[in-house]
Amino acid sequence: MNNPTAAILIIGNEILSGRTQDENVRFIARRLAQLGIKLEEVRVIPDVPARIIGAVNELRAAYDVLFTTGGIGPTHDDITSECIAAAFGLPWEPHAPTFELMQERMGEKFNAARQRMATMPRGAKPIANSVSLAPGFTIGNVHVMAGVPRIMQAMMLALEHELPRGVPIEMRTVHAMGVMEGSIAAALSEIQERFPAVDIGSYPFRREAGWGVAIVAKGTDVAELEEVIAQATDLLAAQNTAPVQGEPAA
Amino acid sequence: MNNPTAAILIIGNEILSGRTQDENVRFIARRLAQLGIKLEEVRVIPDVPARIIGAVNELRAAYDVLFTTGGIGPTHDDITSECIAAAFGLPWEPHAPTFELMQERMGEKFNAARQRMATMPRGAKPIANSVSLAPGFTIGNVHVMAGVPRIMQAMMLALEHELPRGVPIEMRTVHAMGVMEGSIAAALSEIQERFPAVDIGSYPFRREAGWGVAIVAKGTDVAELEEVIAQATDLLAAQNTAPVQGEPAA
Repeated sequence: MNNPTAAILIIGNEILSGRTQDENVRFIARRLAQLGIKLEEVRVIPDVPARIIGAVNELRAAYDVLFTTGGIGPTHDDITSECIAAAFGLPWEPHAPTFELMQERMGEKFNAARQRMATMPRGAKPIANSVSLAPGFTIGNVHVMAGVPRIMQAMMLALEHELPRGVPIEMRTVHAMGVMEGSIAAALSEIQERFPAVDIGSYPFRREAGWGVAIVAKGTDVAELEEVIAQATDLLAAQNTAPVQGEPAA
Repeated sequence: MNNPTAAILIIGNEILSGRTQDENVRFIARRLAQLGIKLEEVRVIPDVPARIIGAVNELRAAYDVLFTTGGIGPTHDDITSECIAAAFGLPWEPHAPTFELMQERMGEKFNAARQRMATMPRGAKPIANSVSLAPGFTIGNVHVMAGVPRIMQAMMLALEHELPRGVPIEMRTVHAMGVMEGSIAAALSEIQERFPAVDIGSYPFRREAGWGVAIVAKGTDVAELEEVIAQATDLLAAQNTAPVQGEPAA
């Protein structure tokens, strides 16, 4: 696939401590697939300036697009914005239109902490969102978003028309209960060899009724995906099971 | 904190596609906190040999312990084990006791695909688990575990007595509805300055009743954590809200 590539950098002590279950990767990943952007890496790092600066510079060089989540609020642990400026070697300064808008709306509540949310690397373009007055921002190929899922999602949707696009990455699935991966591995491998452009995955899953396997075909050519799933369906049926196209119910 | 450090490497196209919601990071993170091991990085990468080999070598050098999840099943997309061998420059060969045990239990079903699950880097030590006959393994400071949460969890629990330990990393929380982070940021920053050894985080959250803020104190000195939370409770109460110690209900 010749699609644009992307990475997500999650700046979040709360993920690394196990306190918070990340929900942002899945949301961004699914949106990117629809846009034809290939998500190639996710990193979670702590709220430490050298770590943020290093990871931003590594990932923005390695991929076409980098998304960051987290660390753009008003408190002492929100250091993403100034670290992005440092990563780019740019001054970190009030973004005049954002500063004025927030001042107008917040009046005397627009204190020093909140002013930090209107401060960006020079040249950044705000990412407005429908949930919160404080924006994210884009600088170069880096899109800096909130960590709170509701706000991040609004920013992502506001941002999508600015992103590069490729052929949408589609997915088709068939699953069956009572099949062990080891019994179908050789034949599945042959299907993979016949369709080298399709990314075929095999995933065991557990339900009340016991174990099952989901076969997933991913790629940009829907006709090929459907042919792979037809062959995988035949393979599963030959195991004396009842294959069902689509994802297993959670 | 002078605790041992760790990273998690998730080898998983299914996470990068947004098909699967990762549940393993949170489980491992919480166990590590109890063991006094500091989780400093998580990476998610695709099932691509060069990516796996590169990330394993980078992360095992950078941290005291590395956990991998995913890619140790019997199908064509399960390539973690041979990539770990390549990363260490070790032969990838049948692990005799595992091979014999699986052969004995599985009989004629112990086919070529399943034999791959008994194949490990030379010198690896199996990680038995109570769910599946096929083990994970440890080689050097790298612990190679399944991606299926139920199996990964059994492997993690089987493994814990082998891990280095530090002072357990504890967490205390206070939360309140109706408080905006920007209103407490300056005072919270002062608390952080008074307790430099405590890692204080501030996290907005959304519930049916509206927005709230959770203040989290993390560290190894429980008395300090409790003092931080007492001061944060006073700070929240001064905003005319009713602070509640502990995590907000989901």
